[in-house]
Amino acid sequence: MISHAPNPDLLAKAETLAEALPYMQRYAGQTFVVKYGGHAMGDAEAATDFAEDIVLLKAVGINPIVVHGGGPQIGAMLKAQGIESRFVDGLRVTDAATMKTAEMVLSGAINKEIVSWITKAGGRAVGISGKDGRLVTVSKVLHPTDDLGFVGEPDDIDIRVLDTISKAGMIPVVAPIGVGPDGETYNINADTMAGALAIATGAERLFLLTDVAGVLDKAKNLLSDLTPSQIKMLREDGTITGGMIPKLETCIDAVEGGVDAAVVLDGRVPHAMLIEIFTRQGAGTLVRQG
Amino acid sequence: MISHAPNPDLLAKAETLAEALPYMQRYAGQTFVVKYGGHAMGDAEAATDFAEDIVLLKAVGINPIVVHGGGPQIGAMLKAQGIESRFVDGLRVTDAATMKTAEMVLSGAINKEIVSWITKAGGRAVGISGKDGRLVTVSKVLHPTDDLGFVGEPDDIDIRVLDTISKAGMIPVVAPIGVGPDGETYNINADTMAGALAIATGAERLFLLTDVAGVLDKAKNLLSDLTPSQIKMLREDGTITGGMIPKLETCIDAVEGGVDAAVVLDGRVPHAMLIEIFTRQGAGTLVRQG
Amino acid sequence: MISHAPNPDLLAKAETLAEALPYMQRYAGQTFVVKYGGHAMGDAEAATDFAEDIVLLKAVGINPIVVHGGGPQIGAMLKAQGIESRFVDGLRVTDAATMKTAEMVLSGAINKEIVSWITKAGGRAVGISGKDGRLVTVSKVLHPTDDLGFVGEPDDIDIRVLDTISKAGMIPVVAPIGVGPDGETYNINADTMAGALAIATGAERLFLLTDVAGVLDKAKNLLSDLTPSQIKMLREDGTITGGMIPKLETCIDAVEGGVDAAVVLDGRVPHAMLIEIFTRQGAGTLVRQG
Amino acid sequence: MISHAPNPDLLAKAETLAEALPYMQRYAGQTFVVKYGGHAMGDAEAATDFAEDIVLLKAVGINPIVVHGGGPQIGAMLKAQGIESRFVDGLRVTDAATMKTAEMVLSGAINKEIVSWITKAGGRAVGISGKDGRLVTVSKVLHPTDDLGFVGEPDDIDIRVLDTISKAGMIPVVAPIGVGPDGETYNINADTMAGALAIATGAERLFLLTDVAGVLDKAKNLLSDLTPSQIKMLREDGTITGGMIPKLETCIDAVEGGVDAAVVLDGRVPHAMLIEIFTRQGAGTLVRQG
Amino acid sequence: MISHAPNPDLLAKAETLAEALPYMQRYAGQTFVVKYGGHAMGDAEAATDFAEDIVLLKAVGINPIVVHGGGPQIGAMLKAQGIESRFVDGLRVTDAATMKTAEMVLSGAINKEIVSWITKAGGRAVGISGKDGRLVTVSKVLHPTDDLGFVGEPDDIDIRVLDTISKAGMIPVVAPIGVGPDGETYNINADTMAGALAIATGAERLFLLTDVAGVLDKAKNLLSDLTPSQIKMLREDGTITGGMIPKLETCIDAVEGGVDAAVVLDGRVPHAMLIEIFTRQGAGTLVRQG
Amino acid sequence: MISHAPNPDLLAKAETLAEALPYMQRYAGQTFVVKYGGHAMGDAEAATDFAEDIVLLKAVGINPIVVHGGGPQIGAMLKAQGIESRFVDGLRVTDAATMKTAEMVLSGAINKEIVSWITKAGGRAVGISGKDGRLVTVSKVLHPTDDLGFVGEPDDIDIRVLDTISKAGMIPVVAPIGVGPDGETYNINADTMAGALAIATGAERLFLLTDVAGVLDKAKNLLSDLTPSQIKMLREDGTITGGMIPKLETCIDAVEGGVDAAVVLDGRVPHAMLIEIFTRQGAGTLVRQG
Repeated sequence: MISHAPNPDLLAKAETLAEALPYMQRYAGQTFVVKYGGHAMGDAEAATDFAEDIVLLKAVGINPIVVHGGGPQIGAMLKAQGIESRFVDGLRVTDAATMKTAEMVLSGAINKEIVSWITKAGGRAVGISGKDGRLVTVSKVLHPTDDLGFVGEPDDIDIRVLDTISKAGMIPVVAPIGVGPDGETYNINADTMAGALAIATGAERLFLLTDVAGVLDKAKNLLSDLTPSQIKMLREDGTITGGMIPKLETCIDAVEGGVDAAVVLDGRVPHAMLIEIFTRQGAGTLVRQG
Repeated sequence: MISHAPNPDLLAKAETLAEALPYMQRYAGQTFVVKYGGHAMGDAEAATDFAEDIVLLKAVGINPIVVHGGGPQIGAMLKAQGIESRFVDGLRVTDAATMKTAEMVLSGAINKEIVSWITKAGGRAVGISGKDGRLVTVSKVLHPTDDLGFVGEPDDIDIRVLDTISKAGMIPVVAPIGVGPDGETYNINADTMAGALAIATGAERLFLLTDVAGVLDKAKNLLSDLTPSQIKMLREDGTITGGMIPKLETCIDAVEGGVDAAVVLDGRVPHAMLIEIFTRQGAGTLVRQG
Repeated sequence: MISHAPNPDLLAKAETLAEALPYMQRYAGQTFVVKYGGHAMGDAEAATDFAEDIVLLKAVGINPIVVHGGGPQIGAMLKAQGIESRFVDGLRVTDAATMKTAEMVLSGAINKEIVSWITKAGGRAVGISGKDGRLVTVSKVLHPTDDLGFVGEPDDIDIRVLDTISKAGMIPVVAPIGVGPDGETYNINADTMAGALAIATGAERLFLLTDVAGVLDKAKNLLSDLTPSQIKMLREDGTITGGMIPKLETCIDAVEGGVDAAVVLDGRVPHAMLIEIFTRQGAGTLVRQG
Repeated sequence: MISHAPNPDLLAKAETLAEALPYMQRYAGQTFVVKYGGHAMGDAEAATDFAEDIVLLKAVGINPIVVHGGGPQIGAMLKAQGIESRFVDGLRVTDAATMKTAEMVLSGAINKEIVSWITKAGGRAVGISGKDGRLVTVSKVLHPTDDLGFVGEPDDIDIRVLDTISKAGMIPVVAPIGVGPDGETYNINADTMAGALAIATGAERLFLLTDVAGVLDKAKNLLSDLTPSQIKMLREDGTITGGMIPKLETCIDAVEGGVDAAVVLDGRVPHAMLIEIFTRQGAGTLVRQG
Repeated sequence: MISHAPNPDLLAKAETLAEALPYMQRYAGQTFVVKYGGHAMGDAEAATDFAEDIVLLKAVGINPIVVHGGGPQIGAMLKAQGIESRFVDGLRVTDAATMKTAEMVLSGAINKEIVSWITKAGGRAVGISGKDGRLVTVSKVLHPTDDLGFVGEPDDIDIRVLDTISKAGMIPVVAPIGVGPDGETYNINADTMAGALAIATGAERLFLLTDVAGVLDKAKNLLSDLTPSQIKMLREDGTITGGMIPKLETCIDAVEGGVDAAVVLDGRVPHAMLIEIFTRQGAGTLVRQG
Repeated sequence: MISHAPNPDLLAKAETLAEALPYMQRYAGQTFVVKYGGHAMGDAEAATDFAEDIVLLKAVGINPIVVHGGGPQIGAMLKAQGIESRFVDGLRVTDAATMKTAEMVLSGAINKEIVSWITKAGGRAVGISGKDGRLVTVSKVLHPTDDLGFVGEPDDIDIRVLDTISKAGMIPVVAPIGVGPDGETYNINADTMAGALAIATGAERLFLLTDVAGVLDKAKNLLSDLTPSQIKMLREDGTITGGMIPKLETCIDAVEGGVDAAVVLDGRVPHAMLIEIFTRQGAGTLVRQG
């Protein structure tokens, strides 16, 4: 005999959807900028999960903007072409030949691959770079001792092309490239690009997907919420080091530029964004004004 | 040491959201008419769950329209007023005094209570009856031997008021009352009202929430999909009996009137609608053209 | 032989329409809030006249919003149910049972009856209460010595549902009920509700229909125009007394809240609103900033 | 002591407005083309009444289009210039010099005078001719024995300029002039022009204001309703003669071209249009399909 | 054998179009007010060129507004009617009879002739005067010693009718006539009218087409750019004299009223406006804030 | 002394603009698809001219869509990478590695270079491929004897992304790449892609820019107009040979698919498109239905 006792699995699913409701209501109509890292791109399953997450954001009324990097892939292509890579303070020195290869890899390979994933997940993506629609004008990054070549910082952002794409029900996917004052092509750090677009679009959230588990304290426990002043202290006492420092500076710039919160997320965790956005538990390290 | 091995509970939640994505995409912009039964209204927790489900449908871009009944509450109020209830073939004989009480209970108590639940769940509901905005004009139900009084059937439906409310981001909640040819007030069977609104609005789905577990075969197993011709056979062989017969006739009328599918759902199962709409398993008995 | 000498009756009709023209032009696109009293509701002919007036306002481009009371009808229903009515300073003490009955009478009987009249007059009305679309949130009215129960004052008004209905060519009819801070149902004085909606919608006119002939001086002549300071003097010298005092306070609140003028009108005079609005003579007592 | 017994005059005014309501509802959003005759233009009071009528139509949501003639004024100006007028079958033979004078009188004097009246009555009129916005292209009227010169018939009508003006809340006033196939200026009979614009705009009503009391039977009683076939019979039995014949032909063309009804009205009766449109009695002779 | 060596003529054409591009981009969506003089109207070829220029402005996204004069034609018509012309300080004394003739010539002859030219050039023009749509209200020009009659200055400008016509893809052609405080008709100097419309519409450019070659220095060389203070000096040293003085005052008023630049152009040069607007060389004398 | 005799150069410029007017009017609001060839890309001056032409089309209200090839650049890059190119019947056999390189060159180098040129010319371009916004779905090109690899033909085109970009005032630049049935990346012949987009967008014109002087007869004279049946005859008699055959087949497909005309143009002639579009002489060979 059948009872109306609920199937526990189905009930759990229903409760998950119900739990997500207040977050859907809160974020409807808002913009989320998501930096998707080059390191995470080798894994087809992770890419599929990521694309589904992005399409789900769009389905519930959020406007996601994806910014991607591509350092490892650029390096591999340069190596295949016999072009030597040189770095200064972690920044690739980018001469004209390097820039040409970097643009081909970023705009011609990675950008379109992400578009394909989103298409397969049922979304409608449009892959552009900062050149398209005059999106990003840069100024050259000046280094005290070296000439970094075509490495730029966003100077002026015209979000019209992003708005046009988002309002048409499509998802912009943006390669971190901009146009210099004389029309030359410049490479931009992808985290920096994502942060600048988040500020310019008045985004509610900036997500930096990476391949570490957020910010950890000295006992290796995840720190789930930080303010800019806490970050300052953690840098001073040596808790935050290495590549996490520029990431958190991008986060601080974003929240000081009007973004409600910036989140450093472990892109290796399946559907990490959904957990962060639609559950009470959250994930990663969230940076917000104190 | 922390690993990026996912927390299984969080992962399950994320997978549920991802599983729901294709259904969100499929149903975005469509209308779902939901009949919410009078029997289910005594229970505050069930009412809260129901309201959350309705608000979640709205949040993901579906336009829900709620139609409610109120038989038990009308009976109780009539009894309290010392007015005797008389039924013919399961239909309440509705004289002028009974109609007046029925309207007060339906439009003045139940309708506004559902509005309150939806408000608490974060939605914005507008409670109306078939009188408002000239929504439903009825003709009197004729009975071979008795005069049923002010019992009507929808004759003409003008959906403008529903469209206006839905397009403004609000949720219509409709009491099963209509206007007769000379302006009198008529009671309408709530299932019939829901079916008629589903046809008139070109709804994708009609849900009839009830307090039984869908249609069962003789071994008491749930029949999850039925066509009109299968229903005809099951009636002939005695599998379908009693109150399920008019419910399924409403379903058949709806799908023959252009509704994609009509579902008889167990309203006692928490979040039954979410399970039916957003998971692969579904719930209840779905009626669709073969 | 026929002459083109005008038929005097037809000529008078034509001149009336021509006389109305400048008022139509002046009021086009503006909002008029009309409080329709419970006392006036027993008379079908008066109700028909009232509904025609409201529909005519809509036809010439004004947006009328009807607010109704229902004191006598609530009293009668409570009496029929054997619930005793208790008043403190003219305010009904409203316990939970009383509130339930009051809501049924207001939202389930009177509200829908006004909708029916307007429908018969050719309009398209939508009957709601302050609960619908989160229209009115109240705070509890505090009394120095007694607990009045569920008696509230409008605290926060969200006019979106009114705008939606009006812009769709329909006429909102509003029962004087609101939602308390914890979601409970509260009764509101209908004059107070009308005044609050007039302020919130930026109405050009507030009409309070009553069953006396406006404000009279001591010689029983109608005072057709008053300023708030004149009203103050007339209260002090005892000209204005009794139930007219809170009505005029509502008028003063309205004009101080931005309503251009508030009018106390004799609802027993057929088509009093049309005379007031569309003729040079006017009717009733108009309150305006000096 | 004051009573609420209504002042009979005010009551009559209110009833007139109420009587007009169903007509306002019926005609809202529709187009009325009104031919205003040259004979009626000498009288400032009549002109003021006419302008008020037109503005009132606009105020209640009707889109009036005024077409005017100007035969007497053209004749007077030609006489003043010493240009001789010649007529063939009632049509003015229009050589180039005559056409130039006719256009100055029609577009430069009468047209702008009507604009001024409507402005004084509170409306916003835009005076154009069939040349403006490419409104009317004509073909030359061919006569069996004579060359009538620049006398044309509407051949092609592009209503965009009328729509533009009407939708902006303004009232088009149109001089009966069109453009010939080679760009020359042509005169058009004003009744014919009005009928052609009524058909092209899908007007609900065509009014031909004249200086006789509609169509009379042989006993000089007004015939208030006629069908095209009745008109045919009345012509055959000699009841309809003279200048009324082409007017009724214009009416028949209009109703056969889709205009709901065409009315020949006595323009000398003050506010004749308001009586015809907004009262039960009507005025003039209405032509409609049987 | 064919070569891909470009045909020099075709190449020059292509380069002209390419040269025009930045000006098209700069002026897209802006308003240009063009005063077209009465002197220039006798010549069909010049009129055709002018109309083509205006239609080309519209085609590339500029909103042209044409204002015309008509002094010589008014004088000729008055003479033909035996009405004597009297001038005070270059302004025609305008009694009622003169005004009536002036309006017929301006609104009934010249205005519609310009509409015809634009129509032939493929545009869609609407000829109005300052009376239409309540465009221009004037105050009477007061003269220290004489009564100039119906000579007015723009006092209040309501641009709604211009906006309506321009946004519908049509070109307004405006006769220099306005309405006085009591509804009388007033003549306005056409340059003054053009300047006032330029200020009221927020125009980017005011063009005054005349029959001299711009402002010349004492050596008869064209002065192509002037500031208001330079003009003041040139008046003081006697370089600027006669009819050029009021023209330049109109230009100064316009640029001080927010118009970006005002240009005095030789209307006898074919396509002078195109040269001024779309080439690097320009033409005429441009007045702009220093 | 200055005369108003026109400067002949300026006059010629003005006449060129006036000559262009009827073409601007005719083509306003229409879509032109322009195939820009890979061969023409080495020359910065030619590229600048081309970009100016495209931006001028946009400025006068035409919606240009640019499709580019890239055969020579792909060949060069493959050679640099040591990947051997193999051709069958003129089609490059495209294995996975070749496709990856081709996409990087097309989407990552050429596409963005064209975007940069248009940006410099004052336009706002958005560079996409057939992958973006699900623009082009392909089926694999089947060859009787060989497997060509990832070479596809457009099967289904969803123009929403093109419409979105064009309506936002931007210019789509499209790389000839599509998505296969299983989501793989396919190369498409650029002429074929341009023709397919022209049909799908209902384009008025398809331009195929090439590096020969249109279609020549046997005496090497340019054939400026051809019908499909004339082309058939010229193929049969050997006048049309080689690479011109598939180009003309694309033209025939386009005009048979509803494109008004297709033009083979010599891309080496400066501003060839402007000459073809905006002058009476035209340029190249125009194919249109007879």
